Amino acid sequence: PKIVTLPGDGIGPEVTAAAVEVLREVAPDVTIEEHAIGGGAYEDHADPFPQRTRDALKDADAALLGTVGGAHDSAWNKLPRHLRPESGLLALRRELGCYANLRPVRVLPGLEHLSPLKAEIARGVDILIVRELLGGIYFDQDRRIDGDTAYNTMRYTTPEVERVAKVAFWAAEQRRGRVTSVDKANVLEVSELWRRDVQALRDRDYRSIHLNHEYVDSVAMLVVANPSRYDVILTENLFGDILSDLAAVIPGSLGVMPSASLGDGAGLFEPIHGSAPDIAGQGVANPAAAILSAGMLLRHGLKRPDAANHVDRAVAIALREHPTRDLGGKADTRTFTHAVLEALG
Amino acid sequence: PKIVTLPGDGIGPEVTAAAVEVLREVAPDVTIEEHAIGGGAYEDHADPFPQRTRDALKDADAALLGTVGGAHDSAWNKLPRHLRPESGLLALRRELGCYANLRPVRVLPGLEHLSPLKAEIARGVDILIVRELLGGIYFDQDRRIDGDTAYNTMRYTTPEVERVAKVAFWAAEQRRGRVTSVDKANVLEVSELWRRDVQALRDRDYRSIHLNHEYVDSVAMLVVANPSRYDVILTENLFGDILSDLAAVIPGSLGVMPSASLGDGAGLFEPIHGSAPDIAGQGVANPAAAILSAGMLLRHGLKRPDAANHVDRAVAIALREHPTRDLGGKADTRTFTHAVLEALG
Ligand SMILES: CC(C)[C@H](C(=O)O)[C@@H](O)C(=O)O
Ligand SMILES: CC(C)[C@H](C(=O)O)[C@@H](O)C(=O)O
Repeated sequence: PKIVTLPGDGIGPEVTAAAVEVLREVAPDVTIEEHAIGGGAYEDHADPFPQRTRDALKDADAALLGTVGGAHDSAWNKLPRHLRPESGLLALRRELGCYANLRPVRVLPGLEHLSPLKAEIARGVDILIVRELLGGIYFDQDRRIDGDTAYNTMRYTTPEVERVAKVAFWAAEQRRGRVTSVDKANVLEVSELWRRDVQALRDRDYRSIHLNHEYVDSVAMLVVANPSRYDVILTENLFGDILSDLAAVIPGSLGVMPSASLGDGAGLFEPIHGSAPDIAGQGVANPAAAILSAGMLLRHGLKRPDAANHVDRAVAIALREHPTRDLGGKADTRTFTHAVLEALG
Repeated sequence: PKIVTLPGDGIGPEVTAAAVEVLREVAPDVTIEEHAIGGGAYEDHADPFPQRTRDALKDADAALLGTVGGAHDSAWNKLPRHLRPESGLLALRRELGCYANLRPVRVLPGLEHLSPLKAEIARGVDILIVRELLGGIYFDQDRRIDGDTAYNTMRYTTPEVERVAKVAFWAAEQRRGRVTSVDKANVLEVSELWRRDVQALRDRDYRSIHLNHEYVDSVAMLVVANPSRYDVILTENLFGDILSDLAAVIPGSLGVMPSASLGDGAGLFEPIHGSAPDIAGQGVANPAAAILSAGMLLRHGLKRPDAANHVDRAVAIALREHPTRDLGGKADTRTFTHAVLEALG
């Protein structure tokens, strides 16, 4: 099998290098090819998603992404929209046909104290957010600024809703069997369609799943006040962007949060943290999220659950024994990565 | 001066009655007229925002709203959209021209333990959210479901952005002088316009304000992880719906959270909690948010800051001495209201 790595910007290269070391250890037969994306790709190739990267992905079995983008005041943010780092990321998602973004949010036993929530609220939280990733207001074709008026259209079709809902139901079947579909059906027609289609699919093909529907504003509250009530949360692209980042604060460190984006072709696996330009190049970034993303790649991309479990366990041990600075410990990127490799082998 | 009260559904009538008692005490010269809105108005007048209510508001100086809407599975939610309780609320906002929704989020000293956040994170939080309330995807004219495709358009114009931004800058001038404008400018053209116009207004007319811009997903995280970094948060309608409810969980009880919606005409004042049909009619609802909304009405609607301060102080005393059940105390609606009246007089 062939994996394409896309280290990207900021701390992306450092954490991706760590994940690659782990992959070489547990899947030595895999071919790994590195390519450019994001702000760096724009600098070198005048395109945040260069043709060469696009070509390399055509026969890849999975892609492992680092991070893209610069600081808030980066010159990249002043480029025309299609040349900005984020456009590279959106084009990558579209190229791979990754319509379902999976974000596990788990508070590991013994790490409750890291959460900004009270320990009794954070304890035992285990949510999977399934975010639609290729539709809605993100991929609107009619977007424009006309003089002093700007427009973006949120649009969903039944097939778009159904394909991502299937992923959520499938995931719930391996978990606690509950799906909460999130919308704003009291205001939006798009949400009315979403709610109707998700419910119809459940009633037709997933009778064993317990499905309920909640409003996005209410979920934003309850994810904080009572996160244990959720198993799988299914939602559209923009709400998912907000809710998945919101839920990601619960464990107390973005440094341990992986993600998988699945669809028709090769999957895309990436840590959810940003490019952290303030600490880039210093060798102190926590590579746990990138390594856990490699674990999701093994599980979902290469269908190697044993290797994936192996990686998950090794990261848990390393987190306990060699916590990085963001977790209140002292380990740098190298020390942590070695701890994982040791635990693996 | 004339005030119209709109008790609405669920616990709305109980908490509005409490607020009216307080208003009669501190502003005995004010005329108070009660009118129908929401699900009850639909039952009685086949319209969630009846013409009689609309007419009564024409010469009102302010409106005091209870709550609208039924339980999640209420038959009202199955009505055609324009007959649902929420449509009454949206029509009311439009009728009054209330384009700026103000939501103070304050953790009172000594009440940190109620927060789902760790006490050291909740302590001292004092945020004002200014949400645009009459534009964006909520008031789209092009909304539709065509077969298996649904559309809602988010749209903003420069004048719409400027008028609400002025309210945020004005509010920040009375506070700590900082405004965070929230958007998704890395993806949406509407956000690009929003960011540009807010910055231009600051540079032109509000040089003393410290303005920064953050992405909505990042704010969702930081409001939980580090709420003390915010003073005034300014945002568009849909993001504001989500973020204001999210921030509202920080104090630990929705029962103490008022709001004001200001604009060209009479202001609209309402507690942010829902209609709580499960406890409606039992006399146990916490009326603090409704009473504090009456306080905001005195301040912003009738320009009586002394009376407003008086009410705020009385509620703080009552909360300490006679906490309601949602706050871990034993006071019912009546006991709490009496405690406020006593502290007033
Ligand atoms: C960078 C941005 C375009 C992206 C998104 O909004 O999808 C990011 O916030 C994410 O969630 O991966
Ligand atoms: C009931 C609903 C239409 C309303 C909104 O979304 O504006 C509510 O959530 C609010 O925030 O006041």
